[in-house]
Amino acid sequence: MRPRAAVVLTGSELVRGQRTDRNGPFLARELVRLGFEPARLIIVGDAADELDAAFHEALRYELCVTSGGLGPTHDDRTVELLAHVTGRKLAVDEALRAEIEGISRRISERFKRPYADFQPGIVKQATLPEGAMSLGLAGTAPGVLLEEENRIAIALPGPPAELQRLWRNALESEPMRRLLARVPPAHDRVVRVYGATESAVARAFEEAGGEGEGLVATICAHDFEVRVDLVAEPGAEERAAEVEAALVESLGRYVFARNGRPVEELVLEACREQGWRIATAESCTGGLVAARLTSIPGSSDVVLGGMVAYANAVKERELGVPASLLAEHGAVSAEAAAAMAAGVREQLRADVGISVTGIAGPDGGTPEKPVGLVYIHAATPAGEDTLDLQIPGDRDAIRARATAAALHLVRRLLTRSGHTAV
Amino acid sequence: MRPRAAVVLTGSELVRGQRTDRNGPFLARELVRLGFEPARLIIVGDAADELDAAFHEALRYELCVTSGGLGPTHDDRTVELLAHVTGRKLAVDEALRAEIEGISRRISERFKRPYADFQPGIVKQATLPEGAMSLGLAGTAPGVLLEEENRIAIALPGPPAELQRLWRNALESEPMRRLLARVPPAHDRVVRVYGATESAVARAFEEAGGEGEGLVATICAHDFEVRVDLVAEPGAEERAAEVEAALVESLGRYVFARNGRPVEELVLEACREQGWRIATAESCTGGLVAARLTSIPGSSDVVLGGMVAYANAVKERELGVPASLLAEHGAVSAEAAAAMAAGVREQLRADVGISVTGIAGPDGGTPEKPVGLVYIHAATPAGEDTLDLQIPGDRDAIRARATAAALHLVRRLLTRSGHTAV
Repeated sequence: MRPRAAVVLTGSELVRGQRTDRNGPFLARELVRLGFEPARLIIVGDAADELDAAFHEALRYELCVTSGGLGPTHDDRTVELLAHVTGRKLAVDEALRAEIEGISRRISERFKRPYADFQPGIVKQATLPEGAMSLGLAGTAPGVLLEEENRIAIALPGPPAELQRLWRNALESEPMRRLLARVPPAHDRVVRVYGATESAVARAFEEAGGEGEGLVATICAHDFEVRVDLVAEPGAEERAAEVEAALVESLGRYVFARNGRPVEELVLEACREQGWRIATAESCTGGLVAARLTSIPGSSDVVLGGMVAYANAVKERELGVPASLLAEHGAVSAEAAAAMAAGVREQLRADVGISVTGIAGPDGGTPEKPVGLVYIHAATPAGEDTLDLQIPGDRDAIRARATAAALHLVRRLLTRSGHTAV
Repeated sequence: MRPRAAVVLTGSELVRGQRTDRNGPFLARELVRLGFEPARLIIVGDAADELDAAFHEALRYELCVTSGGLGPTHDDRTVELLAHVTGRKLAVDEALRAEIEGISRRISERFKRPYADFQPGIVKQATLPEGAMSLGLAGTAPGVLLEEENRIAIALPGPPAELQRLWRNALESEPMRRLLARVPPAHDRVVRVYGATESAVARAFEEAGGEGEGLVATICAHDFEVRVDLVAEPGAEERAAEVEAALVESLGRYVFARNGRPVEELVLEACREQGWRIATAESCTGGLVAARLTSIPGSSDVVLGGMVAYANAVKERELGVPASLLAEHGAVSAEAAAAMAAGVREQLRADVGISVTGIAGPDGGTPEKPVGLVYIHAATPAGEDTLDLQIPGDRDAIRARATAAALHLVRRLLTRSGHTAV
């Protein structure tokens, strides 16, 4: 059996929905990658009784990772409560105190803030449960690792970049190395599908052999993609490989990836292989397609840029969409989408153009063109493709799904044209 | 004391970090709005023992809301486990069964899928714990409400739009009306600050009176904004109002909002008041500024569009940034930012232009221009403003923070120019 792990995400702003947590998904993926089974993620506020209860539950697992609550103020309670839950005394770590004092002086000089502002927090942040170790500082707060009868608790700071940095330190620590040596290697196979429904994929999975004999699967649809995760217990690796092969065989060309790489990365890669550069022309998605393409490091060798043509006047002047076309077919039409893609290729001198126009709502729909109607057009030197969709959901969902559909349309076109060009 | 509520979000894809949950933040905000205190959000997978434990814990609270696990397949276990945890028998609800059969027939006709595909799921989905009520169907799955000694459990489907629709039904149900009648009205005051650090805001809050006597506060920084939430227990409303007034007085012009409205909405509103239209010119943010502006329903009366000018050639040709300027100062410079803002105003015939250029990393930094260096420029008919920042964090964080900073720069400029214009 895989060792189970729990994650506790602390912060009143998280439990009250004022901010969406990003650390939970990151830590969960890391735990899966390392061979743990993430048992639960618990989001709690700053109330001491709730935090105490959450830590109690989470410390039953072989690994417990927390985020947040390490700062200098009174409502930063993680270290104090970890000491309470594990029945340890708190004590000032003098080496840590000197380290935090040094950092505080540098920050106070660099940002021209009085050093006195830092002093009350320094002792608090240098105070650790007995036997705990510091994982290094994030700002003036240390990450903390605590070992308790074969179980480990790790306290990390809330800001995602800092959390990720100290998490890497935790993985290199002696106690975590020892725990990781006991964890069976992860054996997670991923099959990602576009263009088939979740239930069709579920049926194909059953026909490929289904769960059981140490194989567990998750089938999950999101923004038109369906992702199948096959997790094998130790000993079931061979069965997982067989089921995976049968599933891939049966889903055929709908399978677009066997790993977690996002579709925008596949688009960039396909462009790069052809030596082509890409440009976007967006109306209802308002820049989201360009934002996803440029979210990938190194995208600047492929992405020239894009046009957010929200107003019709901008579609006409900047993308050369004829006013007569807009008058006849409307801005939300296959004709407008094709003209936008052609326009942005010409205007930005791009090889590949991708356009989106639609009605994201909640207003602006008509019986003929309801909210959720979206036209997408992709064009390359080797061919064109077009797509119209009636997308369910609210404004955010329609925009996100239209963005995903646009990226997949251009991916498929590039893959096809890649084949014919060779 | 406010009644406490818990939320259980089910799905292996959530607990394994393959997808970020959107339902938790929505439900948490709803609970706060209605006067509950959200005690915890628990994310669990499909494993029966973990689900069972999570429901056990969550049902101790006066209200427990769950998402997911209502579908037709074997790993949809919510209803069965709610029955188990509350010690109730399961029974087929015949009226519900007829309703699900009708829907299934219509779906099978509309999407040309064999009705036989639906049959195994119909009985399962029409089966409820004794005494439970249906909240209406999402697809073929009912939302379920269950009352247990003054406590209520509500099971909602996973897809956000469906969850939100059935949540509205739940609020109108007889048992929820009775519970809500016992909940003290929400009394949440919000002060949102830009341009002051979290610790400066914390100090101002202490000086304004601080917590205690029924007043609880959260202070939370995110993408350069600091948000203070003041939550008053019944009886402490007056103290909350006094502390809030003192805090606002002390933070002065750094306070930009007293509600949850996002900065992009304030930008659109300020433009609308002046009758001005806005356009964006983005390099490192790659469309995120335009995407945030257009995320607001009805933004099309203010947003003309924008240019994602990723390549230098696009900055030159489309935005008229002189090649000599780029050669002399570089694309990441105050001069380039100013020229991009001017260029997009002229090119798109916009009143207001906002530009961002910077180095999002992880590569491309130099000692003189390190990763995280960002220049922002805003221009209106009434004036201009410029900003350079050294933003910490990874690529995603740098892009998100640069986007927030750009929106705030143009908000402040618009607010100032609004005042001088009056």
